[in-house]
Amino acid sequence: MKGSIHTIKPLVPHGNETALTFARHAGKVVRIQGAIHRTRALGGVTFVIVRDREDLIQAVLNRADTKVNEGDLNEGNQVIIEGTVHEDKRAPNGAEVRIKTLTVVGRVKEEAPVVLSHPTLDVHLETNLSYRPVTLRHPTERAIFRLQAAIAQHFRVFLGSQGFTEIFTPKIVAAGAEGGANIFSLPYFKQKAYLTQSPQLYKQMMVGVFERVFEVGHVYRAEQHNTSRHLNEYISLDFEMGFIDSMEDMMGVEVAYLKSLMEVLKKEHSRELELLSAKLPVVSEIPAVKLHEGIALIREHFSYKSPSEHDLDQKGEQFLCEYAQREYGSEFIFVTHYPRPKRPFYAMDDPENPALTLSFDLLLRGLEVTTGGQRIHDYAAQVKKMKEWKLNPKNFEHYLMAHRNGLPPHGGLAIGLERLVTRLLGLPNVRQGTLFPRDIDRLTP
Amino acid sequence: MKGSIHTIKPLVPHGNETALTFARHAGKVVRIQGAIHRTRALGGVTFVIVRDREDLIQAVLNRADTKVNEGDLNEGNQVIIEGTVHEDKRAPNGAEVRIKTLTVVGRVKEEAPVVLSHPTLDVHLETNLSYRPVTLRHPTERAIFRLQAAIAQHFRVFLGSQGFTEIFTPKIVAAGAEGGANIFSLPYFKQKAYLTQSPQLYKQMMVGVFERVFEVGHVYRAEQHNTSRHLNEYISLDFEMGFIDSMEDMMGVEVAYLKSLMEVLKKEHSRELELLSAKLPVVSEIPAVKLHEGIALIREHFSYKSPSEHDLDQKGEQFLCEYAQREYGSEFIFVTHYPRPKRPFYAMDDPENPALTLSFDLLLRGLEVTTGGQRIHDYAAQVKKMKEWKLNPKNFEHYLMAHRNGLPPHGGLAIGLERLVTRLLGLPNVRQGTLFPRDIDRLTP
Repeated sequence: MKGSIHTIKPLVPHGNETALTFARHAGKVVRIQGAIHRTRALGGVTFVIVRDREDLIQAVLNRADTKVNEGDLNEGNQVIIEGTVHEDKRAPNGAEVRIKTLTVVGRVKEEAPVVLSHPTLDVHLETNLSYRPVTLRHPTERAIFRLQAAIAQHFRVFLGSQGFTEIFTPKIVAAGAEGGANIFSLPYFKQKAYLTQSPQLYKQMMVGVFERVFEVGHVYRAEQHNTSRHLNEYISLDFEMGFIDSMEDMMGVEVAYLKSLMEVLKKEHSRELELLSAKLPVVSEIPAVKLHEGIALIREHFSYKSPSEHDLDQKGEQFLCEYAQREYGSEFIFVTHYPRPKRPFYAMDDPENPALTLSFDLLLRGLEVTTGGQRIHDYAAQVKKMKEWKLNPKNFEHYLMAHRNGLPPHGGLAIGLERLVTRLLGLPNVRQGTLFPRDIDRLTP
Repeated sequence: MKGSIHTIKPLVPHGNETALTFARHAGKVVRIQGAIHRTRALGGVTFVIVRDREDLIQAVLNRADTKVNEGDLNEGNQVIIEGTVHEDKRAPNGAEVRIKTLTVVGRVKEEAPVVLSHPTLDVHLETNLSYRPVTLRHPTERAIFRLQAAIAQHFRVFLGSQGFTEIFTPKIVAAGAEGGANIFSLPYFKQKAYLTQSPQLYKQMMVGVFERVFEVGHVYRAEQHNTSRHLNEYISLDFEMGFIDSMEDMMGVEVAYLKSLMEVLKKEHSRELELLSAKLPVVSEIPAVKLHEGIALIREHFSYKSPSEHDLDQKGEQFLCEYAQREYGSEFIFVTHYPRPKRPFYAMDDPENPALTLSFDLLLRGLEVTTGGQRIHDYAAQVKKMKEWKLNPKNFEHYLMAHRNGLPPHGGLAIGLERLVTRLLGLPNVRQGTLFPRDIDRLTP
């Protein structure tokens, strides 16, 4: 007995002709699929603008030839159209489809809560986020997240080409990497567990395994306040590398990634950048300034006195970026050598000034988008610093196992994906770079 | 004042000569970096086998020429070696390095808890997992996770080439996608939140945005039992696609991915496959059988009576795979049309038999590695099924917003990355495919 058993062949799904490719097939019949973006009747003809997964397509319905039913052309309906391609320079993407058949395969049941067919989605952030399943359908919103996907994937591809291995580390952990109060906890069977603030300790253990590792994953911060710069759940682009000469190795790899990223985005995503009127920063070399010198600089050049001698506030970060732009033509600037109390227990102290650490931030257009540094690789030195920090080395048994069994000099960094995306695109709020953001009030959608 | 400001250039880090490439430089001086894997003294010469990030390198130390200190050659020390490359067919990777200088940059502080220099890591799973920061350094363990990284990355690259967009959706959610008791909960400020069991509801919302989406991310199941097949935190390879003709579209895309994956692994990772003595399955077409016919088949061919007429147990899955291998030469088999109560509220019922759903599992070598199916895309139909399932549509406001605003016919699937890895490599326990597994007892390392 074989009943209805049959075999499944490898499939290339329908829809290989999209807005970006169908114009190549002038004179031929194509199938296009997408949502009705808007319609306009003109005499006996109706222009049906279809939003497919790539872009907009102009389809033309001659009501004398093709019959449609009441409601078939409602905006938002999901349709499959078969028709002939005609070149037309005035149409989006240089061609239009003269409709032979139009089939509605998904029907709209309400008027959309926002207007998707205007060139910009002109709503408040609050509305945008509350109606995410609809607002994300707007072409400019889609462009943000196409770019986000490209940025994350280029991080993987670029680091892969430099000998880094991708890792997946646990997000449910027994202790936080950063410490402090901003950590989510949860019951884990008979134990208490936490949501990881960073893959830091695991990345370092993995330097002993693969020398160079990266991870693209969720991290969690139980921030008690709502700001335009913070999320409670975000995507961290992390890497860690061994056999470094100094922390400038990590900074150099980041410059190389960013330079290569800008080239890829310009080459492969000019359409999205144009839709968003985004102007990417120029990356060739990136200036680096020591924190205390940066603070002195902005006092000298902008008469701005930093509220702390040991940290930059938002205004300070903005002035420093302004300075980098003016003096070095760079919208990025590294700030280095943060004081010891500002950096975690695994940060390596500066041998030239033990009050400081071998650490850096990268600022872009007034916002910190990266934190990194060199880590302690020697077992005894790490245990000593833990004790100075009143931490019990017994609670870091597995972490220290890596040190005891030999770790090379190493360091790494973490880029906040949503911060990088929104800064690159000139969007003011980090939530705009998050499909479904989590903040102190927002657990849905 | 410019102080010590300087600019950071794009950097290609040290270590471009690895075990896989240094042999090309016969006669030249190279720098290699890695851990001392083992040493063997022979007359005035010591063979120092270095484990770099790729593989093993034979380095030769002539004690008359190069001085080393007591302890420098301890196994596990992290070293930088400069020396001249000499071809030698007997050495791993066809060449050896005659050492000019050897610098220890990271020192071992204890005897390793396991022996890394034997060809296999011959320890119990419990030991392997408890000493993960060390055991993962063994070449065969590294091979598993190189392959894991390749499988995940090829999922992204393959789907990207088919018009899918990568998405990042929240893991802290207001309600579970699968329902049931096996869900972790946590306090989220003034609300109660959960860790997602699946990106299902978000994937479906995103079909309305990008038509084809995928996500590689962590998911959580509060399984109360320890088995060789379950993890409490795992990586799910998810995709979802619109404008399908039937659920066989998703099955066809999965066959195409797997076929292409086997080619990539054979071509780019033969070294790792050899180290693990792994024999990959052959994928051309994959047979599909309806569940109730599968149950009848194994009764007929293996005299095995399934304990349930509505599901396969582990033994049933093994027999069915045996049958597929024998009759179709396939180690994979799809099982389709699971009964309604076995599938979640969003599963589309089979119009030919409403007691069944348009759903499938994919089995490989006796284990389910994928679950998928067609989903309900019509708003009224989804609300109706929710009510039949005693679910309150009000609790799915945003999810149903996507349906009300038009969704095309769609479906998707989820592959358990650790299950796929361990089955492909013939490893008996899913924990072996996890860097740092989480189970009911295991929250560290």
